[in-house]
Amino acid sequence: MSAADPRLARLSINQATVKRLSVAQAADACARAGVPAIGLWREPVADAGTAAAAKAVRDAGLRVSSYCRGGFLTGPDRTAALDDNRRALDEAAEVGSPCLVMVVGGLPEGDRDLVGARARVTDALAELAPYALERGVRLALEPLHPMFCADRSVLSTLGQALDMAEALPEAAAGVVVDAYHVWWDPEVYGQIARAGARIASYQACDWVLPLPADALLGRGMVGDGHADVRGLRLAVDRAGYDGDIEVEIFNERVWQADGDEVVAEVVRRHLAHVV
Amino acid sequence: MSAADPRLARLSINQATVKRLSVAQAADACARAGVPAIGLWREPVADAGTAAAAKAVRDAGLRVSSYCRGGFLTGPDRTAALDDNRRALDEAAEVGSPCLVMVVGGLPEGDRDLVGARARVTDALAELAPYALERGVRLALEPLHPMFCADRSVLSTLGQALDMAEALPEAAAGVVVDAYHVWWDPEVYGQIARAGARIASYQACDWVLPLPADALLGRGMVGDGHADVRGLRLAVDRAGYDGDIEVEIFNERVWQADGDEVVAEVVRRHLAHVV
Repeated sequence: MSAADPRLARLSINQATVKRLSVAQAADACARAGVPAIGLWREPVADAGTAAAAKAVRDAGLRVSSYCRGGFLTGPDRTAALDDNRRALDEAAEVGSPCLVMVVGGLPEGDRDLVGARARVTDALAELAPYALERGVRLALEPLHPMFCADRSVLSTLGQALDMAEALPEAAAGVVVDAYHVWWDPEVYGQIARAGARIASYQACDWVLPLPADALLGRGMVGDGHADVRGLRLAVDRAGYDGDIEVEIFNERVWQADGDEVVAEVVRRHLAHVV
Repeated sequence: MSAADPRLARLSINQATVKRLSVAQAADACARAGVPAIGLWREPVADAGTAAAAKAVRDAGLRVSSYCRGGFLTGPDRTAALDDNRRALDEAAEVGSPCLVMVVGGLPEGDRDLVGARARVTDALAELAPYALERGVRLALEPLHPMFCADRSVLSTLGQALDMAEALPEAAAGVVVDAYHVWWDPEVYGQIARAGARIASYQACDWVLPLPADALLGRGMVGDGHADVRGLRLAVDRAGYDGDIEVEIFNERVWQADGDEVVAEVVRRHLAHVV
């Protein structure tokens, strides 16, 4: 397939899918496979230097679909968390990402106060919103699967993410629809329709069984599992989303494979199961 | 503590918590600890014989709080599933359980059609409801944590369980509020208030980290994790529920411990974290 293949026009590969590659290596692998966009992460961008990472992506002819990640707003040190998120917004602007993906944080050790943790998230987002507007980078609130509620994200459903986003200007806050995290939700199609222009990112990844020992690393290639990745893609399209379809797979076996082969497989799965 | 301790008046131990004990052994262990109720499972009841199991529980002076479990209504053989559930309702009536806990079933291998699977559940429940009424045993619909959506239960939230239950007579269908499965849900307190007299069972169990290799076996003793078991207990009470508080813990380490010690620990946790 060539770079001009229109079926790949919206495909993006999140760098976490090819975790062992540097920004430049990942960008080049995408370019070789005709994938026009890439989702970046802070750590490899920091390794390369933000300006050099931005240049590597531009030189490869790619656009940046998202920047991962901000958030972790539920802990005791509010000031440090806000400062870190402002830095992440700066970096996102510098690499040319339209949004900063926000994983809001879980419960502190021994804590059972979900309502309180969620209130801290709402409060911190309100504080970050003006800075996000100023940088031209949208806060993209990502509901995580409820199995991560305690340790990573007290934001668990798309409806809840929209309740938070809608309290802020549309240009400041949107939501991420990640098939892996939301596929099970009986409300998901209604909430996608409600989301409309609030959809900042669509991420494609499948729910495969069994869950591995580290639940974080159990994500499957699209087509291998039970998530209706195409159905959800069609729903975000109907809601008006015409942005990138970003493939983010946390999976040890995928990480051990050759980068170009992983990218080629993502492209095959995209053609077979998403577009 | 004595059998007359009023703080234990609503405590029930689900047999799955002391999995290696027979019905008679589990009932005797409860009685020794002043626990007035027990939740039974089909397999150990079958091992003892239904009539003998019922007698063992009566002889120990206990009541049956629930019977586990029916369901698995999403597979290809509808007739066999319905027959099996009718047998489970017969057994539940014979052991004197007010309800049959329903784990509705997941997605068939390779299937992504959640809407279809949920429709099959609704349809099967409508078919079972008259039989449940006739036997005087309520179908207790249990939403399972969304991490079990693919393999065990396409019923994932209390709101969704209530939507299904409310299509049937109140005496035929209620819901289970299991702290482990629903604690993360941003809607849970509102849905508990909505549930009111539909609450057929409250189950206490904690969400502990990390998730183990077999996610099914990761449940913690109340007080060890992040679920607000007391807060949820207070909410079901406010909704009008005055039935048993059943402790159901699937955990290999708990299973390996001495039965009387497990029961004693459940009692201690109940006094410290639930009542």
